Amino acid sequence: MSIPLRLEKAMEKNSSDITCLFEPRSIAVIGASHDTDKIGYKILSNIVSGGYRGAVYPVNPQGGEILGHRAYKTIEEVPGDVDVVSIVIPAKLVLDSVTRCAARGVKVAQIITSGFSEAGNAEEEKRIVAVARERGMRILGPNIFGLYSSGVSLNSTFSATGVRPGHVAILTQSGALGIALIGKTAVENIGLSAIVSIGNKCDIDEADLLEYLIAHDGTRVVLMYIEGVKNGERLIESLMRTTDVKPVVVIKSGRSKRGAMAAASHTGSLAGSDDIFDAIMKQCGVIRADSIEEAFNWSKFLAFSPRPKGNKSVIITNGGGVGVMATDACERYGIDLYDDQAELKKAFETVVPSFGSTKNPVDLTGGANAKDYDLALSVPASSPGMDATIALYCETATFDSAGLVPMIRETYRKNVEAGKPVCYAIVGGSDVEAAINSLRQENVPVYGDVYEAVSCLGMLYRFDRSREEKGATTDEAQIDVAAIDRIIDGALSDNRKFLLANESSAVMKAAGVSIPQAKVVRTIGQVVQVAEEIGYPLVLKVVSKDILHKSDAGGVALDIDNREEALDAYEAIMQNCRAYKPDAHIEGIEICEMVSKGTEIIVGARRDASFGPIVMCGFGGIYVEVMKDVAFRGFPFNRAEAMKMLKELRSFPLLLGVRGEARRDIEGLIEAMIKVATIIRKCPRVTDIEINPVVVYEQGRGHKAVDSRILIGAAQQAP
Amino acid sequence: MSIPLRLEKAMEKNSSDITCLFEPRSIAVIGASHDTDKIGYKILSNIVSGGYRGAVYPVNPQGGEILGHRAYKTIEEVPGDVDVVSIVIPAKLVLDSVTRCAARGVKVAQIITSGFSEAGNAEEEKRIVAVARERGMRILGPNIFGLYSSGVSLNSTFSATGVRPGHVAILTQSGALGIALIGKTAVENIGLSAIVSIGNKCDIDEADLLEYLIAHDGTRVVLMYIEGVKNGERLIESLMRTTDVKPVVVIKSGRSKRGAMAAASHTGSLAGSDDIFDAIMKQCGVIRADSIEEAFNWSKFLAFSPRPKGNKSVIITNGGGVGVMATDACERYGIDLYDDQAELKKAFETVVPSFGSTKNPVDLTGGANAKDYDLALSVPASSPGMDATIALYCETATFDSAGLVPMIRETYRKNVEAGKPVCYAIVGGSDVEAAINSLRQENVPVYGDVYEAVSCLGMLYRFDRSREEKGATTDEAQIDVAAIDRIIDGALSDNRKFLLANESSAVMKAAGVSIPQAKVVRTIGQVVQVAEEIGYPLVLKVVSKDILHKSDAGGVALDIDNREEALDAYEAIMQNCRAYKPDAHIEGIEICEMVSKGTEIIVGARRDASFGPIVMCGFGGIYVEVMKDVAFRGFPFNRAEAMKMLKELRSFPLLLGVRGEARRDIEGLIEAMIKVATIIRKCPRVTDIEINPVVVYEQGRGHKAVDSRILIGAAQQAP
Repeated sequence: MSIPLRLEKAMEKNSSDITCLFEPRSIAVIGASHDTDKIGYKILSNIVSGGYRGAVYPVNPQGGEILGHRAYKTIEEVPGDVDVVSIVIPAKLVLDSVTRCAARGVKVAQIITSGFSEAGNAEEEKRIVAVARERGMRILGPNIFGLYSSGVSLNSTFSATGVRPGHVAILTQSGALGIALIGKTAVENIGLSAIVSIGNKCDIDEADLLEYLIAHDGTRVVLMYIEGVKNGERLIESLMRTTDVKPVVVIKSGRSKRGAMAAASHTGSLAGSDDIFDAIMKQCGVIRADSIEEAFNWSKFLAFSPRPKGNKSVIITNGGGVGVMATDACERYGIDLYDDQAELKKAFETVVPSFGSTKNPVDLTGGANAKDYDLALSVPASSPGMDATIALYCETATFDSAGLVPMIRETYRKNVEAGKPVCYAIVGGSDVEAAINSLRQENVPVYGDVYEAVSCLGMLYRFDRSREEKGATTDEAQIDVAAIDRIIDGALSDNRKFLLANESSAVMKAAGVSIPQAKVVRTIGQVVQVAEEIGYPLVLKVVSKDILHKSDAGGVALDIDNREEALDAYEAIMQNCRAYKPDAHIEGIEICEMVSKGTEIIVGARRDASFGPIVMCGFGGIYVEVMKDVAFRGFPFNRAEAMKMLKELRSFPLLLGVRGEARRDIEGLIEAMIKVATIIRKCPRVTDIEINPVVVYEQGRGHKAVDSRILIGAAQQAP
Repeated sequence: MSIPLRLEKAMEKNSSDITCLFEPRSIAVIGASHDTDKIGYKILSNIVSGGYRGAVYPVNPQGGEILGHRAYKTIEEVPGDVDVVSIVIPAKLVLDSVTRCAARGVKVAQIITSGFSEAGNAEEEKRIVAVARERGMRILGPNIFGLYSSGVSLNSTFSATGVRPGHVAILTQSGALGIALIGKTAVENIGLSAIVSIGNKCDIDEADLLEYLIAHDGTRVVLMYIEGVKNGERLIESLMRTTDVKPVVVIKSGRSKRGAMAAASHTGSLAGSDDIFDAIMKQCGVIRADSIEEAFNWSKFLAFSPRPKGNKSVIITNGGGVGVMATDACERYGIDLYDDQAELKKAFETVVPSFGSTKNPVDLTGGANAKDYDLALSVPASSPGMDATIALYCETATFDSAGLVPMIRETYRKNVEAGKPVCYAIVGGSDVEAAINSLRQENVPVYGDVYEAVSCLGMLYRFDRSREEKGATTDEAQIDVAAIDRIIDGALSDNRKFLLANESSAVMKAAGVSIPQAKVVRTIGQVVQVAEEIGYPLVLKVVSKDILHKSDAGGVALDIDNREEALDAYEAIMQNCRAYKPDAHIEGIEICEMVSKGTEIIVGARRDASFGPIVMCGFGGIYVEVMKDVAFRGFPFNRAEAMKMLKELRSFPLLLGVRGEARRDIEGLIEAMIKVATIIRKCPRVTDIEINPVVVYEQGRGHKAVDSRILIGAAQQAP
């Protein structure tokens, strides 16, 4: 990890245009209206009433005054610099307006107007981008509801009025959901540092916005709603740098096949494979939420909780049942429990009655009152090995409910001050409900459900772990790119989109991937020499484009163990094939190394429409489709990531050796993965590589790429 | 399905004692107290203030009057019949009290007192049960908080006061959680038909209580919190009959390994394997919830929603994003979407604007107002093919929020009246939050999260499907039980807890499971005849208890294809073995059918500590531990369940044939499963059977049980 370096890089890249978008010194609303029902009024009204700290210029052909601000008839009339314009005029007028704004030196245009690519009108959108690019103006949108930025108190949305300032930044591809989410954040008391409606992202996309948010002190957590990814390689890079310094929570819809179809018809987004999206988010250290509820709970908790110093948590409860549930939930969300029994006993025995438990979960029993909880929850705050706490409470008659809120507030404060994360799940009637509602308004993490509470702490740990585990570099193998290019040239000149088996083998060879040795002999005189060069056992196969079904023709001999058998097999094959098809042109006999059995793994790479080059591995052989035991990664890709991919496979134990088998040559397999990854990265015309299987032998005995298949296409942009 | 017959059976079994527990004509509180802090006061107070409709008798050695009721000094003093007593006296006095109550003719005793098996004092608990059984008195508890029953307005708990009457029955093994849940049901406006604290279940258990609830009209849904199962076979039977007529939602903690340990130390429950619990709940048609939140949402929805007539749902939304999320959620929860495009267009085109979508999700777009929703949500109410609706709303400025509650209330009423399930997810700010809160108090299913709403509808479908798919009968194979018993007798007399390979093979033979043919020959003269009886190819193996490692001794010959090879192999083996160990006693040579390759499946059965006999199948060979691709079932077990088990396996496509392979002999495999199931059921001393692998061949070509392992033990209770 190299955070300082990355931050520096981020700051360099964080172009002043994007800073301008979030912190404009002036904003003009083109299409500002007197009519309170119009969006052009609402945006201006939100800017004004939101207390924006820069200059505001309504633009309206009629001029006059709107909301106490002089309205200019044209953008040209506006005095001084205009950093940002918000364009709220009919679609057919937008291109002209963008042209004039760009000429006028406007830095960023937010195009609220819809009716472009999302409605099938991609051409006009392209023209807009072209005009803007010429003058260096950036475009947000079109088809958006606007932007909120806490730094300058700018609310240029047409919806929410009272946005609460705070520490969560929301980037949303869906306008309707985004507007609704603003309302919901207010209800949940989730303060926002920014909210940006991304819309059709004809120019500015998530990656651009993240560049600003990475370095933005006011933003502690980024919450994104994504429907489809364009330019995924850049997004990966931005996400990686963001999660170095702050958590990113993503809701991506279109998870299911049918959902992806619905997303496609909704925004024209290509949803892509959800498996790949999911894998890449994990690789980037991004936390993925399914539901809005989860995303909100997690974002809020992550924004306020201290970071844990270690990974040992304590569960404190007054009910055994919820203690067990929390233990289950900890396993689900990857939370380790503190396990030093002696220390637990020493720390908790004064507060736990004899029929309770000082084991973790620590059971204070139903008789516990506020004071007992105070005492118990002070323990982790002051115990170095106890890194986080899950506090549970089942409503009882012995606990005076008036003491509940102060107890939680106080123990929360104590733990936070000690830098210890804590979450609460409390179950009961109306007093408990009221406690939850009032404490959540104070941003104390209290939930009515055990799994909900534990999931929040789990995400905190997930974020922390991902920061440690993330790989930011790419390992490359030495491969002969020129040789591969020549093979591809040949295939393309043959009008093929795929390589023949021998061409694929040649590519593997050029990349240094170990393949079975093979050589074609044309006379019986060459047989023994070649056979002994390769080494027994061998397979002999006829080479003839006139004989398609070699086995039927008697054109294959397996298990050739010595020179006599090799010579016999040569003659038998020649004889069989001549008998089978007398006019066949026989080019020779291929003598191949016979591949012995091993663990079959599939290794592949391809160019994904959303994320560019990706690498794949899985449980190989004929089971790959059945078991669907595969892992994916994007770039940066390195040996550590390759190992993590293998470990993700359910079949990974096969590589470690089961039932007394020896460990397989995992290191060799990883090298093969790096070589395949290097091909997809360095050879832009390769679109798809699949080796199935790579037969992996015992440690030190390598592997063989038995059957490889390569697809090619027009050159993609090389990295 | 045969609901009427089953119901009849249920009614027969529904002993009057359990009816008495729920609907006593009189209740005595032994340990009723004047002291308002005492549990003995609280219970009496709850009975009285709860408006119990029967006779109430406080029992207190001091006599006098408590809460306006005359207190009797002893149970003997109480006039008239006493159906139920609630015992709230110190643990050491309970046995005497139970003895006297039983003698007095009390039908059921609720023992509130704790300090029995949960505290290590199992002996006293056993004595209590023995005394009660002698006189036919039933025991609920000990270690419980009491019971609520809406039918007679009985609240004999020591906790909750204002329990809302309604349609959900709660059975809880955890007291603390149970009390907290009562409070939570009030907050969520979930009315209860009954709540029973089960505690140590020394006598009355879940199965007994279900017998009452099955036929109880006031109960529409049963919600259970379980930590451990005893007497699982009876529980299965009761659950099966319950889910024939009403849904059962179960929260089972101890799901994770560590959670199971925590549960064991908490209540002494043996948590058992969660995989098996999970499989059996599915088999019983029980809906399993992880969290309290889920359980409550589902129970409430199931209690109020009409049952769908078919499985085609419509999503109606004003935001594309949430529409896509709902589509994803539908896939997760197994909800099919209505797909007749022409019909959708016809039905919705008047309400959907041109830039919206009449496809499913039906997108009314952000401009939709209350009237548009009214129109759109009337469509499924009156369209025969549209069976259920998921209605989504993102807060917008165009929809006057004052219209939200009436719109939802009205469209809900309309759909429910038409017998159509509908759920709502609405996202937005404080108006939306207020709408959710007020509508939920009216029991209208409105949620703030798309997944939450869709999951409720999903559970409704799950319940419906499980009713159709549930198997209530057991298929048995003709097996030679007497022969198996003789083999077990032999092994037990040899002081073994396992069968030898040849004994296991003999059991398989007696059960009619197809195994490789084999015969031991003692002279070379027998070789050819036996070899030709069995048929080539063959394997020859030395049989000698003095030679453990047969291969090392040169005592195995594979791939014997003809009589010459067989004779050669016989002589070679004899020679090798004599050279290897000259003093070895060689009993003969086993000539075995050589098993050809096929799909390897594991089939097993065992006697589970919680659920009794269970059947197992999985992906076989050496991968079983690695891939963990297994399925379980309890009894009743039949061919349809066996097929469902196979279909649950990720590797099921291997049985259908992948990459052009032919379908495997699934029917034969199912017969083998039925035979193994019959062994475990009919042979009470068999504790564990595992055949790994069963090699399954192409359809019509059968299978071979290659390697079977059988464990035996003391006789278990036979079915």
